[in-house]
Amino acid sequence: MKRVAFVRCFMLSFAAVGATIQPREPGWTGSLLVVPMDGSHWTGVKAVAEEMGRRGHKVTVVIPEVSVLLGPGKHYTTRTFPVPYRKQQLDELQARNVEVMESKQLPLLEKISTRISSMRKFVELQRATAESLLFNQELVDFLRKQDFDAVLTSPAVPTGATLAYNLSLPAVYMLRALPCGLDSTATACPNPPSYIPRFFTHNSDRMSFRQRVLNVLRDVRVAEVLRSGAIWLLRYDFSLEFPKPLMPNMVLIGGINCAVKNPLTKEVEEFVKGSGEHGIVVFSLGSLVSSMPKEKATIFFKAFGMIPQRVLWRYTGEIPDNVPENVKLMKWLPQNDLLGHSKAKAFITHGGTHGIYEGICHGVPMVMLPLFGDQGDNVHRMASRGVGVVLSIHDITAETLVNALNTVINDSSYKQKMEKLSAIHNDRPMQPLELAVYWTEFVMRHKGADHLRPAAHELNWLQYHSLDVIGFLLLIVLIVTLATLKCCTLCWRRCCRKAQKRKED
Amino acid sequence: MKRVAFVRCFMLSFAAVGATIQPREPGWTGSLLVVPMDGSHWTGVKAVAEEMGRRGHKVTVVIPEVSVLLGPGKHYTTRTFPVPYRKQQLDELQARNVEVMESKQLPLLEKISTRISSMRKFVELQRATAESLLFNQELVDFLRKQDFDAVLTSPAVPTGATLAYNLSLPAVYMLRALPCGLDSTATACPNPPSYIPRFFTHNSDRMSFRQRVLNVLRDVRVAEVLRSGAIWLLRYDFSLEFPKPLMPNMVLIGGINCAVKNPLTKEVEEFVKGSGEHGIVVFSLGSLVSSMPKEKATIFFKAFGMIPQRVLWRYTGEIPDNVPENVKLMKWLPQNDLLGHSKAKAFITHGGTHGIYEGICHGVPMVMLPLFGDQGDNVHRMASRGVGVVLSIHDITAETLVNALNTVINDSSYKQKMEKLSAIHNDRPMQPLELAVYWTEFVMRHKGADHLRPAAHELNWLQYHSLDVIGFLLLIVLIVTLATLKCCTLCWRRCCRKAQKRKED
Repeated sequence: MKRVAFVRCFMLSFAAVGATIQPREPGWTGSLLVVPMDGSHWTGVKAVAEEMGRRGHKVTVVIPEVSVLLGPGKHYTTRTFPVPYRKQQLDELQARNVEVMESKQLPLLEKISTRISSMRKFVELQRATAESLLFNQELVDFLRKQDFDAVLTSPAVPTGATLAYNLSLPAVYMLRALPCGLDSTATACPNPPSYIPRFFTHNSDRMSFRQRVLNVLRDVRVAEVLRSGAIWLLRYDFSLEFPKPLMPNMVLIGGINCAVKNPLTKEVEEFVKGSGEHGIVVFSLGSLVSSMPKEKATIFFKAFGMIPQRVLWRYTGEIPDNVPENVKLMKWLPQNDLLGHSKAKAFITHGGTHGIYEGICHGVPMVMLPLFGDQGDNVHRMASRGVGVVLSIHDITAETLVNALNTVINDSSYKQKMEKLSAIHNDRPMQPLELAVYWTEFVMRHKGADHLRPAAHELNWLQYHSLDVIGFLLLIVLIVTLATLKCCTLCWRRCCRKAQKRKED
Repeated sequence: MKRVAFVRCFMLSFAAVGATIQPREPGWTGSLLVVPMDGSHWTGVKAVAEEMGRRGHKVTVVIPEVSVLLGPGKHYTTRTFPVPYRKQQLDELQARNVEVMESKQLPLLEKISTRISSMRKFVELQRATAESLLFNQELVDFLRKQDFDAVLTSPAVPTGATLAYNLSLPAVYMLRALPCGLDSTATACPNPPSYIPRFFTHNSDRMSFRQRVLNVLRDVRVAEVLRSGAIWLLRYDFSLEFPKPLMPNMVLIGGINCAVKNPLTKEVEEFVKGSGEHGIVVFSLGSLVSSMPKEKATIFFKAFGMIPQRVLWRYTGEIPDNVPENVKLMKWLPQNDLLGHSKAKAFITHGGTHGIYEGICHGVPMVMLPLFGDQGDNVHRMASRGVGVVLSIHDITAETLVNALNTVINDSSYKQKMEKLSAIHNDRPMQPLELAVYWTEFVMRHKGADHLRPAAHELNWLQYHSLDVIGFLLLIVLIVTLATLKCCTLCWRRCCRKAQKRKED
């Protein structure tokens, strides 16, 4: 009887299964402060800022008066602040990125000093930007008065994190990863170096003993500044990344940039369609490198003259006389839309996260030329999955490039593996932009996400690893052992003495 | 120019932001094998089986001919197998659950022997069920021929997991947790005992040194059978659970049973409405305990006679003459629907996961009477959040029960905290049933979820903790130190000798 009643209850219940709970008050809106970083970080942050604005939230983006990519949008307002540098300085710094491509020809010492000087200039610039915002009392006071619900920011430079802390606002971080395992430290996320490769090691999740030694040595742990982040929007997923532990406040939004698709302009569409059965090759070295040294460019032009595909190349450098007919040079490339086109056969990329995920999303095999930062690790992950070929920008020749392109285009295993990877990447219960917006709104609605914050943050190193407990238990074992030994010794002695006495008697 | 182009590109792009990627082939269906466990585990598994069937998948549920709750459904077919026990034996075993309520009055030795004998009977029964399925060659052959895409099962008894392994099918597990940290071991999920409380310790995530010692001692690790699971559907979320690391193949579906709502029958609805401003109290001790010893029941009847609320009680025991007018006894309680009613003021529960999440979902404060299993830990989590009061079924009196009910109903802090908890629990990007169905389909589509499987599974204990690497590095340090010391000693001796010689000269 009981069982029948239960079954009936359950069967009835499924008539109404569609009526799920509505967790959000309809029409609820709040206000969001966005403190972005210049460069490719902006892409994902801007996508969320725009979408939040489109949904009716009041979105304020705080940007320096001078920047490379940061700028106004359709659905948010910007608030600029003065900085002590000019656009020219930014452009000069950016031009230095091109130097990476020729640095092999420089003597080692000069190469190192160039790198250090570039790095120092970059850090100085970031410091100047941060100080210009954080010490701008008028602006900070203005922002305080706005009564924001949350801050969305890139934590790679902790300006936004610091501002959120000052304004006592919950923070949503968006990032790919932080160097030195700082992201793991700041989220209290376990990060065993035995199978989680460290950045810049080019290790995979299956490591030899030698590789694991390197991995452990890279395991530096610094700073605690970022622990207060409420939600971490991580620009990766496990189609590219090696599987590893996550914390409850981590949300994976890899490929957030792929969902935004537009038709190509008529001119570009015609050029693409004209490629016939051979299709097109898309070539871009990312938002920070649009040019290259002349002798490098010559290699690419030569190689492109030798392939049947048409090539669309983001290139702002010097244009030679003999540009092959199948090459179209563009100042800005609608990269995602081109990769999404059925004619796309290969993607030549520097291996930045955005480009890599656009390639995965649309299933286009890659020839990869890593330049700096996490690109070396990204391309290694792709190569280990058999969906692309890695070349060195320093040693590249027209022949190696043509061979690599022919391999990824004509060896069908690359396309097949890429399509499998693409199917897995695209098969997610919720699109990453939706997810990023949802969790940003969550932080605004609940003034943070305290229920996702692990108690590990309140433990010191000894406690976290239970070393105090283990020490205590060892101490007990030691005491018990010593006491037992002592007892045994005493008993033994007494026995001996008795035996001796008896003998003597 | 570049920047303007970029900004324009981006602004344009948002016109089409609605057009997200469609990852699933429309109309795709597959076939799913379900191997459930009897008891409360069935609730969640059945919900997914029904919903999968409703969506057009071929769902086959394999159940023993005799069971407590398992049975047919609207959207799936069942396949039964004979077992060497009868319904009567199951009922007897179930009746033993009631004995827990009086076990305090028994002498200690008898109490322990009763528990062991119950446990042994339970294990024997599970073994008999497992063998009846796994050694039923005809049935196994039949299932093999069905060409299923995946298996959905409760891994608490690994019958389904073993069957999946035998049939070489990817498995989706649904569970609350496994004892002895087995779930963490089988998923290679970090599980530091410093802040993650072990089951049956009643610890929270903030532990004193004494509690942490207990926690470490509970940290037994056994068996590797379950490592092959593709997806782990976990029946919890962080509104109740303390935040801790997750692995990529873990999907949180706590509260999967709350979404299914139905109108009350007319009779029940009238009884509920008739409660006026005082509202109702919902009382159930779960699917396995519907009765109680007479002297306990008397306490409850007495207490209910002293409160102004109306009480709906799932009770199949002996009915006394003087049942108070405000009490309605029912053989089966539409628990979730009653808790979802606006008149629900309090929930008296044993603290099973399903009931707890239904209470959280609908924001009803609780009086909790844990009986066995994970119930003690569940109620402790609730009490630590200030949303309920824990009583012991052994010491309970009419007065303590009335006091507890008055506290959770009239002290507004309980209701307020419960509503906050409820808001957080219900504020999720996707409802748990949707999520469970999505990932079950994912495993069917991709024949597993290998991209979510961490490389940690392939490491031994020494490697996982990098102890080999640390040993190697220590060895190097030792060698370098010894070599340096040796050099210094040699130099020192030579110097001394020279000085001696000079003196002698």
